[in-house]
Amino acid sequence: MKATMLYGTRDVRFEDRPDPTIVHPTDAILRVSVACVCGSDLWPYRGTQPMNGPTPMGHECCGIVEEVGRDVRTLRRGQFVVGSFATSDNTCPHCRHGYQSSCVQREFMSTAQAPFLRVPLADGTLVATDEVPSKAQLPGLLAASDVLGTGWFAADAADVKPGATVAVVGDGAVGLLGVLSAKRMGAERIIAMSRHAARQALAREFGATDIVTERGDEGVARIKELTKGVGADSVLECVGTQESMWQAIHAARPGGSVSYVGVPHGVALDGAPLFFSHVRLHGGPAPVRRYLPTLIDLILKGAIDPGKVFDLTLPLDQVAEGYKAMDERRAIKTLLQP
Amino acid sequence: MKATMLYGTRDVRFEDRPDPTIVHPTDAILRVSVACVCGSDLWPYRGTQPMNGPTPMGHECCGIVEEVGRDVRTLRRGQFVVGSFATSDNTCPHCRHGYQSSCVQREFMSTAQAPFLRVPLADGTLVATDEVPSKAQLPGLLAASDVLGTGWFAADAADVKPGATVAVVGDGAVGLLGVLSAKRMGAERIIAMSRHAARQALAREFGATDIVTERGDEGVARIKELTKGVGADSVLECVGTQESMWQAIHAARPGGSVSYVGVPHGVALDGAPLFFSHVRLHGGPAPVRRYLPTLIDLILKGAIDPGKVFDLTLPLDQVAEGYKAMDERRAIKTLLQP
Repeated sequence: MKATMLYGTRDVRFEDRPDPTIVHPTDAILRVSVACVCGSDLWPYRGTQPMNGPTPMGHECCGIVEEVGRDVRTLRRGQFVVGSFATSDNTCPHCRHGYQSSCVQREFMSTAQAPFLRVPLADGTLVATDEVPSKAQLPGLLAASDVLGTGWFAADAADVKPGATVAVVGDGAVGLLGVLSAKRMGAERIIAMSRHAARQALAREFGATDIVTERGDEGVARIKELTKGVGADSVLECVGTQESMWQAIHAARPGGSVSYVGVPHGVALDGAPLFFSHVRLHGGPAPVRRYLPTLIDLILKGAIDPGKVFDLTLPLDQVAEGYKAMDERRAIKTLLQP
Repeated sequence: MKATMLYGTRDVRFEDRPDPTIVHPTDAILRVSVACVCGSDLWPYRGTQPMNGPTPMGHECCGIVEEVGRDVRTLRRGQFVVGSFATSDNTCPHCRHGYQSSCVQREFMSTAQAPFLRVPLADGTLVATDEVPSKAQLPGLLAASDVLGTGWFAADAADVKPGATVAVVGDGAVGLLGVLSAKRMGAERIIAMSRHAARQALAREFGATDIVTERGDEGVARIKELTKGVGADSVLECVGTQESMWQAIHAARPGGSVSYVGVPHGVALDGAPLFFSHVRLHGGPAPVRRYLPTLIDLILKGAIDPGKVFDLTLPLDQVAEGYKAMDERRAIKTLLQP
């Protein structure tokens, strides 16, 4: 098959790769229905994150089961399944506490921008739908496997409650779906921080009530102004930089909650100001597996439409252009069709 | 009157100071029943925290109301009251959310190692008992005003639940009362980290089921061993150093909660390892006022005996020896009698 490899800064190639095969008896092989480029793929693409040589890319995962290993119990060939960026056995203590993305057997997926994909720990990682979904449902289900699951975790980890005032830092796909998630969890006021017209529009469509274009201290001041000096109950940090983390922390009220769901790059939190901010802080790799049954159900019954974050669709062999469009912020998120 | 001043590193003096008077109409003047030295007083005492010249000391507060300003509504002369290290109006949005120690009108107390004391915002800061308590009840009530309230917040902020496995980093008065608080909140297993025999004994008396003497990575490894590799559900960080913070974070399971209740000194949390630890983090100056009614009630009915943390009693004029004994870890906590 041909699949996606990142060779170095802004060097994406679609090239011959071995077809995946069952390695462990708990593996499954999927025929990928749709793939996509993630905001987090841009860290190594931009050279911000060191790489160890050429790397296969892609960690958002849905498709048709093509083959299962001999120890796979719950899945069979022909089923449509959704996974996530992290594998999980779904039975270890961390999984049972709902933190499947810290499973003791976790592996991070990285070969999904391809027509075929090996998924380890298939029983614990993948969730099958009753029927093969329609083509129109695919973008939403693909979003569930990462950006929606991550936005949902952001809202959950920031303790979004009915009636709450929520601020969202970051207008990428995760931030936008954090808005959708907060809305779904009953937030009354949702302040989206964005200076990009198309993203502002989608944020409003997903439930944002206010848009703040200022950043850093000015952004914090604006949120304080909008909340009568109090700060937000919940703040979702969906960027991962030092500036965005402090923007989030300072935008929350004392006793409020701040979630952070993107791998922090260059972030160091000074203890004393964090202490006096009085916020709750929770984040980490989103345990998407915990939320998948709920999210798949909401998508299939049409209650939410997270697939709207895909504003560029390309054939898989044009994956390099998919990265480029996101890097240049011409696209929020690129869908790839094998 | 004579009162306590810190002039510089290890230079505590008990010297003439003006009697406190009503400055604002919301003030009260207390005749201090008992005072004490706090673990946090040792930061400036040891020179670890910069000072701006000679500073009056003491922030733990209980006594008899001597005089009230003309706008004080709920207190009258002769009542026994308990306060905390932070004043609060108890009506602002932060107070109403239970974060009185971030009150918009907050002032930090610092003149309580004295026979008389001015308390700003008396109505919102002080809680009166129905009757003047017995002499035997005074140490417990004094503890409520800071170290118990802080240990209680540590347990609450670390989400201690019935049946939980809890680890406590730090064997000062706050850590020990964190043990007591976790026990009271229903923790099943409480691992106290201490290498000091008298403190270990008190930890066990307060409810600790296990003692870990190792520190840093070895301490973490020991906690992992005691929890079958999983980590603790809740970890109370009651020291405030870089080593103790990471010890606490790494001792918690993914999805577990870490509280930190002492002002961090030299702490910087690197974002990426914090992210992958997957913990919840909450701390700050303990909102003691929120818990005072509950804690006073538990103490007066004899359900808890937090006054046991005072293992040295001195006349107030020997306050310098009180600091010295704590600095040298000869005393857990010094009670001072005016």
